[in-house]
Amino acid sequence: MKTTLVREIYKDKEFYSHKEIKVSGWIRTSRGSKNFGFIELNDGTFFKGIQVVIGNELENFKELIKLSISSAIVVTGKLVLTPDAKQPFEIQATEVEIEGESTNEYPLQKKRHTFEYLRTIAHLRPRSNTFSAVFRVRSLASYAIHKFFQERNFVYTHTPIVTTSDAEGAGEMFRVTTIDLKNTALDEDGNVDYGLDFFGKETGLTVSGQLAAETYAQAFRNVYTFGPTFRAENSNTPRHAAEFWMVEPEIAFADLQDDMKLAEDMMKYIIKYVMDNAKEEIEFFNKFIDKGLLDRLTNVANSDFEKITYTEAIEILKKAKEKFEFPIEWGSDLQTEHERYITEKVFNKPVFVTDYPKDIKAFYMRLNDDNKTVAAMDLLVPGVGEIIGGSQREERLDKLEERIEEFELNAEDYWWYLDLRKYGTTKHAGFGLGFERIIMYLTGMSNIRDVISFPRTTKSAEF
Amino acid sequence: MKTTLVREIYKDKEFYSHKEIKVSGWIRTSRGSKNFGFIELNDGTFFKGIQVVIGNELENFKELIKLSISSAIVVTGKLVLTPDAKQPFEIQATEVEIEGESTNEYPLQKKRHTFEYLRTIAHLRPRSNTFSAVFRVRSLASYAIHKFFQERNFVYTHTPIVTTSDAEGAGEMFRVTTIDLKNTALDEDGNVDYGLDFFGKETGLTVSGQLAAETYAQAFRNVYTFGPTFRAENSNTPRHAAEFWMVEPEIAFADLQDDMKLAEDMMKYIIKYVMDNAKEEIEFFNKFIDKGLLDRLTNVANSDFEKITYTEAIEILKKAKEKFEFPIEWGSDLQTEHERYITEKVFNKPVFVTDYPKDIKAFYMRLNDDNKTVAAMDLLVPGVGEIIGGSQREERLDKLEERIEEFELNAEDYWWYLDLRKYGTTKHAGFGLGFERIIMYLTGMSNIRDVISFPRTTKSAEF
Repeated sequence: MKTTLVREIYKDKEFYSHKEIKVSGWIRTSRGSKNFGFIELNDGTFFKGIQVVIGNELENFKELIKLSISSAIVVTGKLVLTPDAKQPFEIQATEVEIEGESTNEYPLQKKRHTFEYLRTIAHLRPRSNTFSAVFRVRSLASYAIHKFFQERNFVYTHTPIVTTSDAEGAGEMFRVTTIDLKNTALDEDGNVDYGLDFFGKETGLTVSGQLAAETYAQAFRNVYTFGPTFRAENSNTPRHAAEFWMVEPEIAFADLQDDMKLAEDMMKYIIKYVMDNAKEEIEFFNKFIDKGLLDRLTNVANSDFEKITYTEAIEILKKAKEKFEFPIEWGSDLQTEHERYITEKVFNKPVFVTDYPKDIKAFYMRLNDDNKTVAAMDLLVPGVGEIIGGSQREERLDKLEERIEEFELNAEDYWWYLDLRKYGTTKHAGFGLGFERIIMYLTGMSNIRDVISFPRTTKSAEF
Repeated sequence: MKTTLVREIYKDKEFYSHKEIKVSGWIRTSRGSKNFGFIELNDGTFFKGIQVVIGNELENFKELIKLSISSAIVVTGKLVLTPDAKQPFEIQATEVEIEGESTNEYPLQKKRHTFEYLRTIAHLRPRSNTFSAVFRVRSLASYAIHKFFQERNFVYTHTPIVTTSDAEGAGEMFRVTTIDLKNTALDEDGNVDYGLDFFGKETGLTVSGQLAAETYAQAFRNVYTFGPTFRAENSNTPRHAAEFWMVEPEIAFADLQDDMKLAEDMMKYIIKYVMDNAKEEIEFFNKFIDKGLLDRLTNVANSDFEKITYTEAIEILKKAKEKFEFPIEWGSDLQTEHERYITEKVFNKPVFVTDYPKDIKAFYMRLNDDNKTVAAMDLLVPGVGEIIGGSQREERLDKLEERIEEFELNAEDYWWYLDLRKYGTTKHAGFGLGFERIIMYLTGMSNIRDVISFPRTTKSAEF
């Protein structure tokens, strides 16, 4: 008999009512007496499980009733709707095969575990309610991102992971090498001879795919990257990981307004897609992880995002009665406390802050006519603070060269990036979304280690 | 006026006929006389461009007629259908703004360039017909993969890129480190003290996400990974890159037959999706790159894949009149020449070869009852050879432990992988698809360097 997936039964229980079906999965809970027992079976396809009723007429009843949590079984029986019970239906088993037994040493017994403990069994935690919900949402949000951009005819571009320079100046890089560390060959000046390394030069892990993506935007107009990025920063916070995924669209013939429009549309699309396709999971988060979640997501999905300039933001913050840990002056970067004040207390919805001082933003951002600010935008959202950072890119060759000099970067490293400004440059823009940030936002989970399957952080690369 | 995308015009030219529209893009070719000129404009959204007619009534006509290839312009004018001409329509310009000029030094002039040369300008090559087609197909194939699995409710899992051991034994790894190579700290035994490294232990770049994906399959039933993988192998061939993308589904409660069914369905889905959504590109490849392409793809999309065992394959090869470079005996691995003979000469369609000798396959593959072979499968396709490798996984704890010992691997490194066999193990299977292989297959491109935006190979990590 063909196996029926629990997700299908939830989608159309009337269809399966009183039919004989076969399901298979893992035992989440089990209770019983001498004559009958109830097993909550989760088959992995749906957040909720199915109740299996077993009676002592089954020849292996005694074995079944003793099965440990997480044992895998295959159940044949009749599906019966149970409109008066807590669960909508149950399966009355006529045969139960044991596919794989678990033991009492199973580390994920049915009791409350701390998230810290569950990180030590990251290979098993997706079998719990919380992490099954987190990682299904992560999968759905990934797909929503692809769907959003592909429906708009954006070209998905796999930018390189191994790169030759920290081209963006965005952060500390990991080195990638095949050099024998015990026996590093030095050249005559006493420097490491990277000519002998695998790629024949010094290489590291990418911190951003943006610059490479820009080259493709000048061919395909609208492109996006979605892949892993890395920061070798010793920041042991709940919001930083050494390995995380980023989404980076780049759009040609577009300015900062177009960029913000795209970011707003994308955010709303992702939220709506996840709310539509992970109803049970979002309900669970709203109930057990973050009580205001559902309201907040609904609010964001339906509100027009606010837009203010950095200069206006500074004025608001200076007038605020709130005591901030970090004092704020025009020219200093906004801290999370400032960002959250603006988005939560002042506007209570997502806010784009634009036109930051040029000295606190990257070299590639377009210089405004005031010569003091750049056409940057950060999107701040309630509960998180900054979730997206973007800008219109400097498309003018002379200005870009000046900025590269101001930042004391080596223009030769950017020959190909500068080429884009020589051979048919266009107004263009883009942004980066830290993918884990939006998963935290969608789930209410407050530690980045709990939204990455096997997180990599300072001194930790388990599994 | 809102900008109209060239893709939209091709989709519904009647709608735009005789309307005033605005388009923007880059000049691909240009020719003219004193009084009028023709510009072929590509706006990045569609393989084909649009013809722009300019006349000397335009005040900047003289400038326009001299614009170099790849200059960016914004054109306003009337769309006119041209049923008798080569191109289906043209735009009669009433205004042309120059967005960004190119120069005569533009390295991608309108003439035949070798693919080797174009690799040296990888930042510009997507502006050529061939590479615009390759990288749009790559984007569409990526999306087809996500769509295929998501429609089947598979959970997309981001398995880690930085890993602690070459868990699969699949190949040479790159080291990831923040240790100062000039000043490597050694411990008292004279070994590198990885305790001082970023992650506190020796780390490298993943060669496969399979083992990690298996942990998620035991929670979600059906999962897939799709991400970059790395091999530090000095193989300077047209088929190997140091950095490439892999698709790896893992399915629980499933055997080798289910695995082959999934692989066949996926292959057909990807091919059909790309043929439906990149008609112009596939036609181009069929005409200029690989004359048999369209027939081959159509054939594969519509044929039932063949299944033979490795032992049968050996018999066929031994009987073959073909002279092979590598002699073939039961127990030796199939070489590309053997694979291609089977799929091209014998069956002329895709062929699954199953049940390979256990000694030439990985430790995690399920041992067959004959104790000599494992439940492995390779999918061979005409024109390429092996494109997919998969297996039913060994779900029995004792057998898996024996195999780990036989392969002289350290069981402690696999504690979490072995846990899956202790706590509710299930029959399960999976496979890996080298993503670049299928792009080569879909486009007829014969060098992997030409289907990766910025390829990383031995001694080469440019851009």
